[in-house]
Amino acid sequence: MIPSSLPRPLRGIIPPMVTPLLDRDTLDAQGLERLIEYILAGGVHGLFILGTTGEAPSLSYRLRRELIERTCRHVAGRVPVLVGITDTAFVESVNPPRRTKDAGAQAVVLSSPYYFPAGQPELLEYLQHLAPELPLPVFLYNMPSLTKVVFEPETVRQAADIAGVVGLKDSSANMIYFHQLQTLLRDRADFSLLIGPEELLAETTLLGGHGGICGGANMLPRLYVDLYNAARGRDLDAVAKLHERVMAVRNAIYSVGRHGSSYLKGLKCVLSCLGICSDFMAEPFHRFRQPERDLILRHMRELGIGG
Amino acid sequence: MIPSSLPRPLRGIIPPMVTPLLDRDTLDAQGLERLIEYILAGGVHGLFILGTTGEAPSLSYRLRRELIERTCRHVAGRVPVLVGITDTAFVESVNPPRRTKDAGAQAVVLSSPYYFPAGQPELLEYLQHLAPELPLPVFLYNMPSLTKVVFEPETVRQAADIAGVVGLKDSSANMIYFHQLQTLLRDRADFSLLIGPEELLAETTLLGGHGGICGGANMLPRLYVDLYNAARGRDLDAVAKLHERVMAVRNAIYSVGRHGSSYLKGLKCVLSCLGICSDFMAEPFHRFRQPERDLILRHMRELGIGG
Amino acid sequence: MIPSSLPRPLRGIIPPMVTPLLDRDTLDAQGLERLIEYILAGGVHGLFILGTTGEAPSLSYRLRRELIERTCRHVAGRVPVLVGITDTAFVESVNPPRRTKDAGAQAVVLSSPYYFPAGQPELLEYLQHLAPELPLPVFLYNMPSLTKVVFEPETVRQAADIAGVVGLKDSSANMIYFHQLQTLLRDRADFSLLIGPEELLAETTLLGGHGGICGGANMLPRLYVDLYNAARGRDLDAVAKLHERVMAVRNAIYSVGRHGSSYLKGLKCVLSCLGICSDFMAEPFHRFRQPERDLILRHMRELGIGG
Amino acid sequence: MIPSSLPRPLRGIIPPMVTPLLDRDTLDAQGLERLIEYILAGGVHGLFILGTTGEAPSLSYRLRRELIERTCRHVAGRVPVLVGITDTAFVESVNPPRRTKDAGAQAVVLSSPYYFPAGQPELLEYLQHLAPELPLPVFLYNMPSLTKVVFEPETVRQAADIAGVVGLKDSSANMIYFHQLQTLLRDRADFSLLIGPEELLAETTLLGGHGGICGGANMLPRLYVDLYNAARGRDLDAVAKLHERVMAVRNAIYSVGRHGSSYLKGLKCVLSCLGICSDFMAEPFHRFRQPERDLILRHMRELGIGG
Repeated sequence: MIPSSLPRPLRGIIPPMVTPLLDRDTLDAQGLERLIEYILAGGVHGLFILGTTGEAPSLSYRLRRELIERTCRHVAGRVPVLVGITDTAFVESVNPPRRTKDAGAQAVVLSSPYYFPAGQPELLEYLQHLAPELPLPVFLYNMPSLTKVVFEPETVRQAADIAGVVGLKDSSANMIYFHQLQTLLRDRADFSLLIGPEELLAETTLLGGHGGICGGANMLPRLYVDLYNAARGRDLDAVAKLHERVMAVRNAIYSVGRHGSSYLKGLKCVLSCLGICSDFMAEPFHRFRQPERDLILRHMRELGIGG
Repeated sequence: MIPSSLPRPLRGIIPPMVTPLLDRDTLDAQGLERLIEYILAGGVHGLFILGTTGEAPSLSYRLRRELIERTCRHVAGRVPVLVGITDTAFVESVNPPRRTKDAGAQAVVLSSPYYFPAGQPELLEYLQHLAPELPLPVFLYNMPSLTKVVFEPETVRQAADIAGVVGLKDSSANMIYFHQLQTLLRDRADFSLLIGPEELLAETTLLGGHGGICGGANMLPRLYVDLYNAARGRDLDAVAKLHERVMAVRNAIYSVGRHGSSYLKGLKCVLSCLGICSDFMAEPFHRFRQPERDLILRHMRELGIGG
Repeated sequence: MIPSSLPRPLRGIIPPMVTPLLDRDTLDAQGLERLIEYILAGGVHGLFILGTTGEAPSLSYRLRRELIERTCRHVAGRVPVLVGITDTAFVESVNPPRRTKDAGAQAVVLSSPYYFPAGQPELLEYLQHLAPELPLPVFLYNMPSLTKVVFEPETVRQAADIAGVVGLKDSSANMIYFHQLQTLLRDRADFSLLIGPEELLAETTLLGGHGGICGGANMLPRLYVDLYNAARGRDLDAVAKLHERVMAVRNAIYSVGRHGSSYLKGLKCVLSCLGICSDFMAEPFHRFRQPERDLILRHMRELGIGG
Repeated sequence: MIPSSLPRPLRGIIPPMVTPLLDRDTLDAQGLERLIEYILAGGVHGLFILGTTGEAPSLSYRLRRELIERTCRHVAGRVPVLVGITDTAFVESVNPPRRTKDAGAQAVVLSSPYYFPAGQPELLEYLQHLAPELPLPVFLYNMPSLTKVVFEPETVRQAADIAGVVGLKDSSANMIYFHQLQTLLRDRADFSLLIGPEELLAETTLLGGHGGICGGANMLPRLYVDLYNAARGRDLDAVAKLHERVMAVRNAIYSVGRHGSSYLKGLKCVLSCLGICSDFMAEPFHRFRQPERDLILRHMRELGIGG
C-alpha cells in the first residue's frame, strides 16, 4: 500500500507550499512552476501542498484538483509530494486521495475535522474508519489553533498502529506535547515526527525529531535545509547561527499587518517581490496593499533576501 | 431579489432541522418527510436546514443537494425554507445557492469562514463580495464557539446595509452581545434578530427579539411556538411555565453523554425513540449506544415526551 | 448566625461600590461619604463593597479594613452592607470577616480562590471548610473571566446546603448558566440569585431573578432601581424603555479606552465629573487622561447624566 | 543596589521549592530543613521560594514571612535565595521585600498582578513604579496560564531597561515566545532567561538559555543539574539520555490525579514518600489520598526514585 519511494520515517525539510493564485479560482500556473523549481533548488526533501499555508480550505475543490495534478506532473518524482486532504466531511476526505494517488503523490495529510470538535475516542474512530479508505500513507496534522482539537498523545499512540498512518506534523507550537509524542513513540523508528513552526526546527531536530514542514522554506528553502543538516550533524555553532537567522526572518516578515494572517500574507508578498509568483490570496484574506508591501521590501533588503 | 414570500422581518420559530441519515452518505428519505410533517404540525414559522444542528459540514455536497431538493419539494411553500451555505471556500459558498433558489428555498444562512479566522474588516469585505453573488436573501449566523470568529456588533451594523442581508441568527449565548445588536439596529425594523439557544428564547422575545432557531423544536415544535407566542403576547405567567419546561427538557435530554455533541446526539436519539427518523450521525460523531438511549428513554417518560 | 436584618432572599439593587481613592493607599474619605449618600438616595436595597468594581484585590489589607469601617459607620444600618472577602489564601479570607461583622456588615461575598484553579470537588470542599469559620452569611460570587473557575451548577446546588450560604452573584454573563441555577434552586425560595452585568437585569428580573449587583448603579442608582421595580411589576413598556437606557449608558460610558478596564475607568471618571469622588485608580490601572475624560464628558451631556 | 553575590546573569538550576506544611497555617519546619539540604546536595545554583510550586498565593502572609526567614537562615548564603513577591495589590508587593532583604535573600520574583489583567502599557508602568521601591534585584515571572497576562516580548525588552530588573522566568511553555525574548535581548548578556517547565530545559540550554526553575528539581535535583551541565557542555548523547529521563519522570509522577494540580500533588507526594517533608497542601488543594499515593509509590519504584 505504501509506495517504496516514501522514506520511512520521512525526514528533512518538506515546505508547506503556498498556492499561487491569479484570482480566487484561477491558479497562477507559471508562478507555480517557478515556485516549485525555486523550492526544489534549495535541496528540500519533499513538498506538502494544500495545507494551511496552501490556503486549502479557502480553495474550490476544482482548483485543488488542478493544483495536485500540476504539482505532481511538474515535480515528476524528484521529491515525494504530500497532499492535504483535511475536510469537515468524511466523504469529501475520501474522494480526493484517489485522484491524488493517480496523479503521482506519495502521501496525504489529515487534520481532525475542523467544524465539529470530536472527542478523542471519536477522533480515533474517525481515523480507524478513514485510513482504510485511503490509497496512500497518511500523516496526521495537529493544528489545534485552527481545528479546536488536539490529537492527544495517547490518541496518536493508538493511531500509529493503524495501517497506513506513518507520521505526524505538529503545528501546536507546544514543545512539551512534542516531547510527549517522542517518548510515547520511541519504539516506532519508522514513524515520522515533523514540526510545523520553523522557530522550533533547531531544537526538535537536535532532540531527535525528523524534520520540519516550515512555511519559511517557501522563500528561503536553503536556510531551513542548512539548519536541518547542521542540527542532524550536531554542529551547534552552525545551528545557533542559522536558528538566529530563522528568528530574524520571522520577526521581520511575519510581523507586518495586524491580523492572524500576517504570516501567510508576508510569505506570499516576499514571493511576489522575488518575482516568483502572484501574491493574490483567497478570501477571507487579501494580499498586502502597497504600504505593507513597502515594509516587506525594506525588511527583505535588511535581511538580504533576494539580493 | 427578495421573494415576496419571506416576511421582513422574519419572525417566529424556525427549527434548525436535524438531517435524518441511514448512513454517512444516505438520506433517511422517509424519516425526512415524517420529520418535516411533525415539525410543521407544531405551527412553526419556517424551517432551517443545513445548519449546525443539521450536521451540514459533515455531509457530502451531493447529500446536501439532495436534502435541499427533497425538503423544498416536501415543504412545498407551506413555510419559508432557509438553507445553510457556510463553507470555508468562497467559490463553494456561491454554487449551492443557485440550486437552492431553483429548488424553492427562500433564504440562505451564512457564518464566517470557519477554518481561517478572518479579521473584522476581512469578514465585512467577505460579505460585501459574497452577498451580490447570492440569488437569495442572506441571514448571518453568529456561531463563535465553532467558527472562532464573532460578527462584532459594528460589523453587523455595516453588514445590515449590504443589499440582501436581512437578518442574523445569534448562537453565541451572549445576551449582552444580543442586546448590543438590538440597540445598534433599532432603526432597522425589517432586520430580523433571531436567537439560537432555546434557553434564551423567552427573554429575547420579551425584549424585542424576533424569534428563535431552536434545536429543541425538532422534538417539541409546539412548545417553542407556544413560548414564542406567550412572550409576544406578554403573558408572563405562561412564559414562566413554558420557559421552565424548556429548561427541564434541555437539562434532561442534552446532558446524556460526555462530549460537546451531547446536544445533537440527544436530539436525534429522541426523534428515533419517537419513531420519526433514524438517529444515525455523520462522522466525527456517532449515535448513542443502548445505555445512553435507555437514559434518554427514561428522561422522555419523566418529561412526558412522546406519550 | 444570620442577622435578622438581612432579608432572605435578598432582593433588589445592590450596587458594587467603587472605592474612592486619593492615592494608592489613601481613601478619599469625603468622596466615600458623598458617594454613599448619592447611591442611597437612589433607593437601592443594599451596598456591596470590595468587589471587582471596588478594586478590592488591588488594595492593601489596611485600606480594605478602613473602607469597611467607614462604610458601615456611614451607612449606619440604612441598608445591608455586603463585603467582598475573596482571597487566594484561606487564612486571609477568614480574618477580615470577623472585623467586618463587628463593623456592622450583614454579609460577605466570596469568589473561588483566583490564582490556582480549583477543581469542582475542591471548590465545594473549600466552601465547606470556610463557611463555618465565617461569622456572617455568605454570597457566592461567580466571576470566571477573572477567577478562571466557574461555580458549576451542581456545585452551587450542593453549596446552597452549607449553613450560612445564602445566595450567589453571577457575573459570568452566561444566561444559560443563570437559568440552570434557577432551575436547580427552584425549591430554595430563600436563596438569592443576583445578576452582575446590568445589561441582563431586565430579563433576569422578568424571569424570576432576585435583582442585580450592577456597576452602573454607582452613577445612576435610580435608573437601576426603576428598572428592577418595573420588571418586578411586569410593566413591559417601562422595562423596554429603561433597559434601552441602560444599554445606551453602557455603550457610551464603558466604550472609552482600549483595555479590559474601560468599564471601571469609565465609572470612576463619571463619578469624578459629577463631583462625587476622586477617579484615582489603584495599580495596575490608572484613571483616564484628559482626552478620554473629554469623551466621557461629551457622552454624559448626550445622555443627560449630571445635568 | 544589587548584591555582589548574585551572578549576572544568574545561571543554572534554581528549584522552585515546595512549601512543607503541617497544616494550612503551620510550616513543617523540620521538613523544610531536610528539603533544603536534599536540594542543595544536588548541586543546584539557587533556590526560589514562594513561587507557584511553593503555593505562595495560598499561604498566609505570616507564614510566608516565616518561610523566608527560616529558609534564608538555613541556606546561610550557600546559594542565592530568590523570593516570590507576586501580589494583586501594589502595596502588599512592596512590604515583603524589605523583610526579605533583611533576611538575606538575593532577589525577588514578580509576576503580573493576577486578578485584574493589565494591558501591556499598564504592566510596564506597574514595573516602572514598583521596581524602584524594591531593595533587591527583580526577576520577572511569565505565567500566563495562571495570571491571564503575558509579558509580551516588547514589554520585556523595555522592562529590561528598568534598574534592578535582571532576568525573567518563563513558564508559558511557549518556545517561540522564549526564542523571541532571546532575539530581543541578544545584546543583554547580563539578563537572565530561565525556563520554567523542565521538559524544555534541554533545548533552551542548548540554544543559549541560562538555566531552569524546574519543579522536578525538588525531588531529583541532581538530574536537572546534570542535564543543565550536559547541555552547557554540548554533550548531546548525555542530553538525550537525561532529557528522556526527565520526560519519563514527569509522565509518571505528574499524571496521577485528575485536576490541574496533579503536578503539585505529585511532587509533594514523592517528597513525603521519600521521608523528606509532609505532603499537606494549602486550600484549595489537598494532598493525594491512599490510592493515588500507591500509584506514586509504584511509579517511584519503576523509575528508581528513592531506592
